[in-house]
Amino acid sequence: MNTTHHSDNTTDNGAAETRALLAELGAAARRAARTLAAAASGEKNRALQAIAAQLQAQRGAILAANAQDMANGRDKALEPALLDRLELDDSRIDAMIEGLEQVAALPDPVGAISDLHYRPSGIQLGKMRVPLGVIGIIYESRPNVTIDAASLCLKSGNAAILRGGSEAIHSNRAIAAAISAGLSSAGLPCEAVQVVETTDREAVAAMISMPEYIDVIVPRGGKGLIERIANDARVPVIKHLDGNCHVYIDDQADLNMAYDIAINAKTHRYGVCNAMETLLVAEPIAEKILPRLAGGFANHGVELRGCDKTRALIDAQPAQLSDWSEEYLAPILAIKVVANISEAIEHIGHFSSGHTEAIVTDNYARARQFIAEVDSSSVMVNASTRFADGFEYGLGAEIGISTDKIHARGPVGLEGLTSEKWVVLGSGQIRQ
Amino acid sequence: MNTTHHSDNTTDNGAAETRALLAELGAAARRAARTLAAAASGEKNRALQAIAAQLQAQRGAILAANAQDMANGRDKALEPALLDRLELDDSRIDAMIEGLEQVAALPDPVGAISDLHYRPSGIQLGKMRVPLGVIGIIYESRPNVTIDAASLCLKSGNAAILRGGSEAIHSNRAIAAAISAGLSSAGLPCEAVQVVETTDREAVAAMISMPEYIDVIVPRGGKGLIERIANDARVPVIKHLDGNCHVYIDDQADLNMAYDIAINAKTHRYGVCNAMETLLVAEPIAEKILPRLAGGFANHGVELRGCDKTRALIDAQPAQLSDWSEEYLAPILAIKVVANISEAIEHIGHFSSGHTEAIVTDNYARARQFIAEVDSSSVMVNASTRFADGFEYGLGAEIGISTDKIHARGPVGLEGLTSEKWVVLGSGQIRQ
Repeated sequence: MNTTHHSDNTTDNGAAETRALLAELGAAARRAARTLAAAASGEKNRALQAIAAQLQAQRGAILAANAQDMANGRDKALEPALLDRLELDDSRIDAMIEGLEQVAALPDPVGAISDLHYRPSGIQLGKMRVPLGVIGIIYESRPNVTIDAASLCLKSGNAAILRGGSEAIHSNRAIAAAISAGLSSAGLPCEAVQVVETTDREAVAAMISMPEYIDVIVPRGGKGLIERIANDARVPVIKHLDGNCHVYIDDQADLNMAYDIAINAKTHRYGVCNAMETLLVAEPIAEKILPRLAGGFANHGVELRGCDKTRALIDAQPAQLSDWSEEYLAPILAIKVVANISEAIEHIGHFSSGHTEAIVTDNYARARQFIAEVDSSSVMVNASTRFADGFEYGLGAEIGISTDKIHARGPVGLEGLTSEKWVVLGSGQIRQ
Repeated sequence: MNTTHHSDNTTDNGAAETRALLAELGAAARRAARTLAAAASGEKNRALQAIAAQLQAQRGAILAANAQDMANGRDKALEPALLDRLELDDSRIDAMIEGLEQVAALPDPVGAISDLHYRPSGIQLGKMRVPLGVIGIIYESRPNVTIDAASLCLKSGNAAILRGGSEAIHSNRAIAAAISAGLSSAGLPCEAVQVVETTDREAVAAMISMPEYIDVIVPRGGKGLIERIANDARVPVIKHLDGNCHVYIDDQADLNMAYDIAINAKTHRYGVCNAMETLLVAEPIAEKILPRLAGGFANHGVELRGCDKTRALIDAQPAQLSDWSEEYLAPILAIKVVANISEAIEHIGHFSSGHTEAIVTDNYARARQFIAEVDSSSVMVNASTRFADGFEYGLGAEIGISTDKIHARGPVGLEGLTSEKWVVLGSGQIRQ
């Protein structure tokens, strides 16, 4: 590292120890990453299956460790929602095992060579998909992320350093033991997946500032955690900030389709990032569709917050300026009547978080305009925003949904954990 | 911005003013980026041609401005190499005009939709190539970078904020005037390309810490500049650090081919990042090929620095440990005799900067092993490392060569300045 770089904080002994520990994990991960990058698909799949078998064999120990975390959590009076995410039971362990088997069944992205073609010089040029190297995952209380992240990193040939929340430390240690045993039994280095076993907060600071050991950080958790990490990181971060998703109902929409999509995008699940948070309705059809939608949303118990034009047509709370930016993750919907598609695109450009937006229209030119001009990770015509999802997109699994533009955008699966290098096959060519 | 984020430095008035200025440029760039993203290919090409015409029309003014920079540079006793990079003459302006015309002739990457396919749900899913938004380019004294960067950003639908070295400020202002006039005459916003007109060093600090206005930073210059920027940046950086490139001559190589490739990779040009800096030779053929190579390199005046085994066979200075890491950019070559391909790959993994490596071999399995196991942005079999280049790879132009793994790797052309968003075409699908 650059020794002339100014240090922002006085480092005490504990912090220095944590940094030394993380550097050790990092160096071990780098070594393991080289083995993993060269591992055959069959080896990686056998390791995934061996980890599944270990989860099965160590189910009792994992549940006991989790019970300890739950007891500590209750003592600390953690919120019920957090305790729910923390809790493991047989069905959640079954789901982890099934996830491992699904990832094992996915095609191996590593080594695929695309676009191999001859250049005028006679060299043959292509691109080969390769692992990124070492992935750092920083997450909160859900212990199943430990398995999800480990399996995706392993399959994509990357070593992983996993740092879960301190509430889940016993569960994560137990799961880590299963992962380690599975890796060893398949002949892969157990440093391929390492769980940070200290709950010291300095561990996160260390992880995000060691580009020599970690190639990319994937934070999973609330927007606050992710923003803090992104602000301070010296390692690239694949960010998933918020999902303030919009549906725009054009005046040339099929109104039955528009009704179904709007209801589905809002009410299919509330606490998910691809749920609609603001509905935009073209003024010429607002009078026709809004009362019907208001009835539908009322049946689902959705609270409506509307602009003045909306409130002239249906019963709704007055929307504040802040409502247009809000990711409710709840049965609440902001509604705005807009003059036309241009105002809709303008509103989305200003307030959207760049996650997913949909238009409902039968007009060809407007469908094209919406696709071309809306700058979000998923842009949809006549489909529910709820489709923006790794499983629905056929990625098999996702490590997160990126609201960044650099590297990976939208649902991030195995491919987002890889890069492409150039491959040149020659027969003795030299530059003239 | 996060107002609770701790500030590392006490900001004086001048710095605050520079930051305010950059924020203004940033906001203007954001607005221009939206227009550019939606601009038709024809509009962008007309703008590129109009800028070329303006360079022609304002040639006298640009040369006069450059003469002022050169006079100031001589007064400040700048190094001759720096003065050479700074100087413009008619042929360099001709090259800038030709570059603009070449970029205009490239296919437009924006809007291309790939892999459109149906999912089981009935939605049709594809990926559409889109601009990144606003690109910040930070470079040193070469004024032609102003035109190279502006043309690539414009063609890829991105707004650009360009910050050149203070030595070139008059030249860059004159070129900026030509760009601005060209954009206006083609009906595109002149804020699409903005040159930072202050030479205040704080401008760089401001640019790399405003992710709300700049989507990616491309630094062009020495390793020191790039490392400093990457260390401090809060905006993603496409880094081009050094090119410590290797050629490994396997014991099953065609020795004539190996000779030609090694000589070409070292001597074709010295000051370039894709030149060979270390030659690795398999022990069984070292005795045959090294004396012949030593003769060839002697004819080119290349200084050799070898390991003990090398020095037992040919005349060479003893190589120090630091020689294996060095990017000489000069007629100097480090040579190491290795036992076999495994030791070669090990050496490269340890010392390479991840730019470009080549193997010369007739052995099928070793060619495959080298391609699979060497983790550099370009990996070659039986070709000179000098082919690692945007023009040779058919990118038409390059904004730099990335030694990163995230987002763009190797030569970065128009595609590296774009991202892909997901596009979903439906007929009313909702999630079940």
